[in-house]
Amino acid sequence: MAVYTEVTDEELTAFVAEYEIGEPLSCKGIAEGIENSNYLLAAEGGTYILTLYEKRVNGADLPFFLGLMEHLGARGVPCPTPLKGRDGQMLRTLCGRPAAIVTFLDGMWPRRITPEHCARLGEAMARMHLAGLDFHLGRANALSVDGWRPLLDASAARAEEVRPGLAEDLEAELDDLESRWPAGLPSGVIHADLFPDNVFFLADHLSGIIDFYFACSDFFAYDLAICLNAWCFETDGSFNITKARRMLTAYRKVRDFSADELDALPLLARGSAMRFLLTRLYDWLNTPPGALVTPKDPLEYMKKLEFHRGVQGPGAYGLD
Amino acid sequence: MAVYTEVTDEELTAFVAEYEIGEPLSCKGIAEGIENSNYLLAAEGGTYILTLYEKRVNGADLPFFLGLMEHLGARGVPCPTPLKGRDGQMLRTLCGRPAAIVTFLDGMWPRRITPEHCARLGEAMARMHLAGLDFHLGRANALSVDGWRPLLDASAARAEEVRPGLAEDLEAELDDLESRWPAGLPSGVIHADLFPDNVFFLADHLSGIIDFYFACSDFFAYDLAICLNAWCFETDGSFNITKARRMLTAYRKVRDFSADELDALPLLARGSAMRFLLTRLYDWLNTPPGALVTPKDPLEYMKKLEFHRGVQGPGAYGLD
Repeated sequence: MAVYTEVTDEELTAFVAEYEIGEPLSCKGIAEGIENSNYLLAAEGGTYILTLYEKRVNGADLPFFLGLMEHLGARGVPCPTPLKGRDGQMLRTLCGRPAAIVTFLDGMWPRRITPEHCARLGEAMARMHLAGLDFHLGRANALSVDGWRPLLDASAARAEEVRPGLAEDLEAELDDLESRWPAGLPSGVIHADLFPDNVFFLADHLSGIIDFYFACSDFFAYDLAICLNAWCFETDGSFNITKARRMLTAYRKVRDFSADELDALPLLARGSAMRFLLTRLYDWLNTPPGALVTPKDPLEYMKKLEFHRGVQGPGAYGLD
Repeated sequence: MAVYTEVTDEELTAFVAEYEIGEPLSCKGIAEGIENSNYLLAAEGGTYILTLYEKRVNGADLPFFLGLMEHLGARGVPCPTPLKGRDGQMLRTLCGRPAAIVTFLDGMWPRRITPEHCARLGEAMARMHLAGLDFHLGRANALSVDGWRPLLDASAARAEEVRPGLAEDLEAELDDLESRWPAGLPSGVIHADLFPDNVFFLADHLSGIIDFYFACSDFFAYDLAICLNAWCFETDGSFNITKARRMLTAYRKVRDFSADELDALPLLARGSAMRFLLTRLYDWLNTPPGALVTPKDPLEYMKKLEFHRGVQGPGAYGLD
C-alpha cells in the first residue's frame, strides 16, 4: 500500500493550471503502487492519474520512464501517456517532488488468472517489445545478473532466519547463474515488472499496461521469464503449463523467438526468480515491524527457482 | 488509511449487474475512510463510490445510514445518494460483507481551512439539520455523554502513560459533564463526524458532505460543538474566533439558535472534546505497533477541552 504525500487544494490547483485540462474537480489517493503516491484526478477535461515520485525512484530515470510511455502510447501500446504542460514539459514539481499527470486507463487487473489472460499478455508484451525498438533512450537493468551479488551480500548474514541453508543455496545458484548468463540475445526495452496488478483487462480484452518504473534495456526473453514466474504458477505453488503455453505461443505469433532465446528460457526463469527472491528477502529482513507495507514472502520465489532448476528444456513451458 | 477487501473482477461484475449502470470499467481502492473499504468505481453509466462495510460498522445501522443519505440527497443536501438495484434494494452483499454503491461527489476536502470554508460549512450544516427533520428513522448516539464513562473506564488504568494526572483530570471533567449535560435542546439527525476530510469544496463552494456512518439523533448544537473543535482551532492549538463567528453566523441565518442552545455551547464543546479525546485515547492505547493505522494524538483534544473550560459564554465563539 502506498504512502501518500498530502497535496493541498491550492497546490493542486496551481499545478493543474499548467495543463490544458481545465479546473480540478476531485483528487483521491489510490491504493496502487508502493513506490509512488498516486491520485485519481478528475478535471473538467477528463480523468487522469497524478503521480508524485517518492524517494525510491531515481529522478534521473524519469525522462526515460515518461519518454518511454509517450513513445509506446504513440505506437498503440495501451499504456498511460504523460500529458505535456503549456511549456511542453511532462515533468514538473509538486510538494517538493517530481510529478507528472498521465492518462487514465479503464480496466481491472485480474485477481484470478486464466489461460486467456496469459495469451493476451503474451501478445501485448510482444507488441510492446517491437514498439520500443526505435525508442532513443536506454537504461541499464540494475536488477539483472550484475546487481544480484550486492543484494545477496546485503542479506546473506541473516538469510538463515528465513530458512536454514538459504544463504549457501543462493550463493551456489548465483555462482551458476553468473557463469552461465547468456549474452547477445535479442534485446530492447522491457517492462521488467509485468505482474498481474500492472495489467488491466476489460472482460478478456487487455486494456492497459501500467507502472513502467522498472523498465530498462535487457533481453526480451527476460520479460517473458518474469511473466512465467508471475502469471503461470498457481497459489499452491504448482506450475500451470497451459498458461505458459498460451502466453509463449501468443507472443511468438507477433515476434518469433530465436533458437537461442528458447534454449535460454529455463536459465532466464531461474534468474528472474532469483531477482524477485533477493529483493523480497532484503525487504523481509529490513522492513521495520510498524511499517505500512507488509513484505512479501521471499520463499515463494525460492520454490519457483527450484521448479526451473528441474526443467530440462523449453518443453516444460509447453513449447514443442 | 483504509484496509481493503480484495474484490475479484468476477465478483464485481456480478455485483454491478444488479444495478442499471452498465458494465464496470475500473475499480480502484481509495485512501478514504478508515472504517470501511472504499472503491472508486467507473462504470458505463458514470462514476460511483462502492463501499464494503467492514466489521467496525454495525450492520443493523446500515438501513439508517443509507436511508438518511437518500432522504437528505432528495432534499438537496449535497451528500452521496445510494443507488437502488433492480430489486429496489440499496444494500446487498459483496465478498461476504454488506455493500452499497453511492453517487460520486466532485470536490476536495480543504487541507487549509479558511473562514470562508467555515461559513459555507455552517450554512450547509443548518440546511442538513432542517432537511433531516422529517426523516422517519432514529439512531441513539452511542458516543454521547452516556457512552463516555465506559470508554474512560476502559482506558483509565493506562491513561498515565499518555500524561501524568490524565485519568484523574478526565474523571473530574466527566463527573461535571454528566451532572450538567443539558436536556431538551432542539434535536434531530446530526452528522456527528463533520471533520474537514468529510466536507468537499470546489473553489469556495461546498460541494459535498460525506461519511454519514456516525450520524445519529442528538442536539443540533452538538454538531456545531463538534465543528468548533474540528474546524476552528489552528494547528498550533490556538482558537480562531473569526472562523467560529463565521460558522455560527452562517448557521443561524438558516436556522437560528434558541437562547438555551447558545448558553449550552461551551459545555457541549467540552463534551465534544471529551468524546474525541476518549476514542483517540482508547485507540492510542490499543493500536498494536504494526497496525496500518497511525493513531491520532489524544492530547490535541485535551488542549481543546481546556480552552472550552476557560470560556465564560458564547462571546468566546464570536457571538455578541
